[in-house]
Amino acid sequence: MNKITNHLPTAELQALDAAHHMHPFSCNDEIAKKGARVITRADGVFLTDSDGNEILDAMAGLWCVNIGYGRDELAEAAARQMRELPYYNTFFQTTTAPTIALAQKLAELAPGDLNHVFFGNSGSDANDTNIRLVRTYWAWKGQPERTIIVARKNAYHGSSVGSGSLGGMAYMHDVNSMPIPDIVHIDQPHWWAEGGDSTPEEFGLQTARALEAVIEEHGAERIAAFIGEPIQGAGGVIIPPETYWPEIQRICRKYDILLIADEVICGFGRTGNWFGSQTLGIEPDVMTVAKGLSSGYQPISASIVSDKVAKVMDGSDFFHGYTYSGHPVACAVALENLRILEDENIIDHVRNVAAPAMKAAWESLSDHPIVGDTRIEGLMGSLALTPDKTTRAKFATPEGTVGLICRENSFANNLVMRHVGDRMVISPPLVITPDEIKILITRARKALDDTYAHLKANDMLKSAAPGTASMKAKNF
Amino acid sequence: MNKITNHLPTAELQALDAAHHMHPFSCNDEIAKKGARVITRADGVFLTDSDGNEILDAMAGLWCVNIGYGRDELAEAAARQMRELPYYNTFFQTTTAPTIALAQKLAELAPGDLNHVFFGNSGSDANDTNIRLVRTYWAWKGQPERTIIVARKNAYHGSSVGSGSLGGMAYMHDVNSMPIPDIVHIDQPHWWAEGGDSTPEEFGLQTARALEAVIEEHGAERIAAFIGEPIQGAGGVIIPPETYWPEIQRICRKYDILLIADEVICGFGRTGNWFGSQTLGIEPDVMTVAKGLSSGYQPISASIVSDKVAKVMDGSDFFHGYTYSGHPVACAVALENLRILEDENIIDHVRNVAAPAMKAAWESLSDHPIVGDTRIEGLMGSLALTPDKTTRAKFATPEGTVGLICRENSFANNLVMRHVGDRMVISPPLVITPDEIKILITRARKALDDTYAHLKANDMLKSAAPGTASMKAKNF
Repeated sequence: MNKITNHLPTAELQALDAAHHMHPFSCNDEIAKKGARVITRADGVFLTDSDGNEILDAMAGLWCVNIGYGRDELAEAAARQMRELPYYNTFFQTTTAPTIALAQKLAELAPGDLNHVFFGNSGSDANDTNIRLVRTYWAWKGQPERTIIVARKNAYHGSSVGSGSLGGMAYMHDVNSMPIPDIVHIDQPHWWAEGGDSTPEEFGLQTARALEAVIEEHGAERIAAFIGEPIQGAGGVIIPPETYWPEIQRICRKYDILLIADEVICGFGRTGNWFGSQTLGIEPDVMTVAKGLSSGYQPISASIVSDKVAKVMDGSDFFHGYTYSGHPVACAVALENLRILEDENIIDHVRNVAAPAMKAAWESLSDHPIVGDTRIEGLMGSLALTPDKTTRAKFATPEGTVGLICRENSFANNLVMRHVGDRMVISPPLVITPDEIKILITRARKALDDTYAHLKANDMLKSAAPGTASMKAKNF
Repeated sequence: MNKITNHLPTAELQALDAAHHMHPFSCNDEIAKKGARVITRADGVFLTDSDGNEILDAMAGLWCVNIGYGRDELAEAAARQMRELPYYNTFFQTTTAPTIALAQKLAELAPGDLNHVFFGNSGSDANDTNIRLVRTYWAWKGQPERTIIVARKNAYHGSSVGSGSLGGMAYMHDVNSMPIPDIVHIDQPHWWAEGGDSTPEEFGLQTARALEAVIEEHGAERIAAFIGEPIQGAGGVIIPPETYWPEIQRICRKYDILLIADEVICGFGRTGNWFGSQTLGIEPDVMTVAKGLSSGYQPISASIVSDKVAKVMDGSDFFHGYTYSGHPVACAVALENLRILEDENIIDHVRNVAAPAMKAAWESLSDHPIVGDTRIEGLMGSLALTPDKTTRAKFATPEGTVGLICRENSFANNLVMRHVGDRMVISPPLVITPDEIKILITRARKALDDTYAHLKANDMLKSAAPGTASMKAKNF
């Protein structure tokens, strides 16, 4: 089958893009000067751009294309549903068959008694749902003062005013009157960057206990919920010390605080289980899911809530929801995606084949002169770039400078790796094979070599004095 | 072609829905008791439910299915794009061909110099974009104190924490710590309900000048933007007096305040022009679009901004965006939807055929004993139910009681009309024919008759003392 659309020449596409398309998390004038890269086709783990370059996508789009590109079954599911019922809303005591089927399937897959599904279109809006939901829950339980949600610095929970406020990205709050009131951010369990002389285990306990300190400061009767990604994604793939989540769980139970696991990145196999909560030993009251739910083929998200929470929420009118909540086409595509994940044993593939191969290959990069930390869990990993791995030093340049250089070198070697500050992160499609992992690592090592050569040639291998480097350069 | 999916029996679908699906804007326990209505197929302006009932959808889904149901061309467009490139993100200086093409098309269609498009997934998230965008715009212009956004009571701008705060639905703010700071709500131009002894023209000026009063109270140097739907939709299809928008426009220009037109409902032909702003004579700096952009076949939205705004926003990193901003499949489907709207002259059909036929038929309902106001613009209209049309009286029952009875009677007569308080609203697919309009009106009149009989039999035709009725009953 011919999959090639005749498109305009690259330069014309770039000119139109510059004239009319405002990119997310970008400086559009910069893109206009360089010309955007136009992705035109994709198959498996490989992208093709408008100039015919074939690029290994080690980010699975934006942490989302779990089953890989090019699965025609999902196109068939979309077309079939669109012919039958392209849209109907789920307001006004109405529903559709794919909406029901997906809600049922998610209740089956989600751990514990997470049996009730509120649909949205993106992780951002699902986390907005969670803000409104937990505050409403407590109000209806007779505790309307429980409005504070505790989150972490350097967390990512979305880009809307609400979800961006939950997130701990200071550069997103700047000039936007964010965060909204009653969001409190505590330190993240990022031992490599912030652990100082503690052991990882000590640091995990210490950062978890910051939650208890906040509760004591404000009073438990003011705290609605704690939210966290099992493993922080956009913050730089921060895998917490093993002591962290059990202590968070203990504190939430002790003070009767709802625990929200943001599974937007970790969900649907990323860590070798259906959900990151299972890998990290978390028992949440609410889970946010998106991305891998449809492998990104359709915009869809959900909040999955426990029987305990639903019992309260179902008893009165919750005045919240989106036009496309439970969209039949998005639900039909998500169902087909979950069928493929199950029928093709893709999560077993992650656990037994891809993750072990990737872990060995990823950790082999630790011999590189500018690579420190090489932690990886399932198929999400990061490399801490450092001028001195024995002291976990930062570069003297503004944080992100070296990371951006490495990202550009990665692109130049036909590999999509992302940088977060001076960390390089990967999150490839779950279907990646051992042979494709070899290609990924070969290209990553070449990008690291090119970066090292650039740093040497420009005298950029100096360490920052401790505590002086700050996030100044671009993350995107 | 067989379009019928074999689905479970209705009772089983309802049981699964009750067990696992949390409906938007609903009391799920109530739905569980009654059993949700399951929509399984649709074609043109007609829905079919799981029991085989054929229902005329006078709400176009949720104000969105502008081209009607059953357009296989959109299914083909979705499948074709999904086979070629099912997803890629538009972060990191990357783009896709359908994203570019849709941005270009929207710039061509949008009036004036609205030439720059920031994509999202829903009207809610596009209005969150607008909150962040206008505040960032002023900060980068050196006026970071300009953070206040003025909106209207009884406006609807979405359900996220940010967009729901812009909205003026008090029942959504309750127990949710909303609105967020620096949103100010002024009175709406709802002459029928709130105009008292003024003429509509006087009342239009008076409610517009409330904006000037807010500006004088806070100081223009604190005001970022004014946002309004050209015609309020979810508030009950409130068509403002003709004096309203010119005065709002004058005030925004005088104080250099950005004007955001929320075109989520009015856009893409609803009022007989491409955008409601053209029908109402508004020249916005920012337009919110969603719904009709894809006729609801895909979740997609956008903020379309002027050259003046883009010039500032494009110069630096705007740290905002969504994973599915510019989703290639959603963009491809939206493009095909816009092609159909253009090639089939559907907006001309609205202006020259459907709207005149509907207006005559709709206004003919004014002879009904409980129908007062019958205003309609293009293909969005409302009926004010009243026990005394000469005094524009409200019912003595809590507002919404009679509307809900009429909605249930409408459903029972195989017509989807929505109620907002005690107003009945319609917004049918734009392709509705004069014959279908006759069916709509016949069923609407039957629903009104059934409602009148119910009110008479239950002694519910009494008027409220002026100023005593309050919105208490369900809107959904």
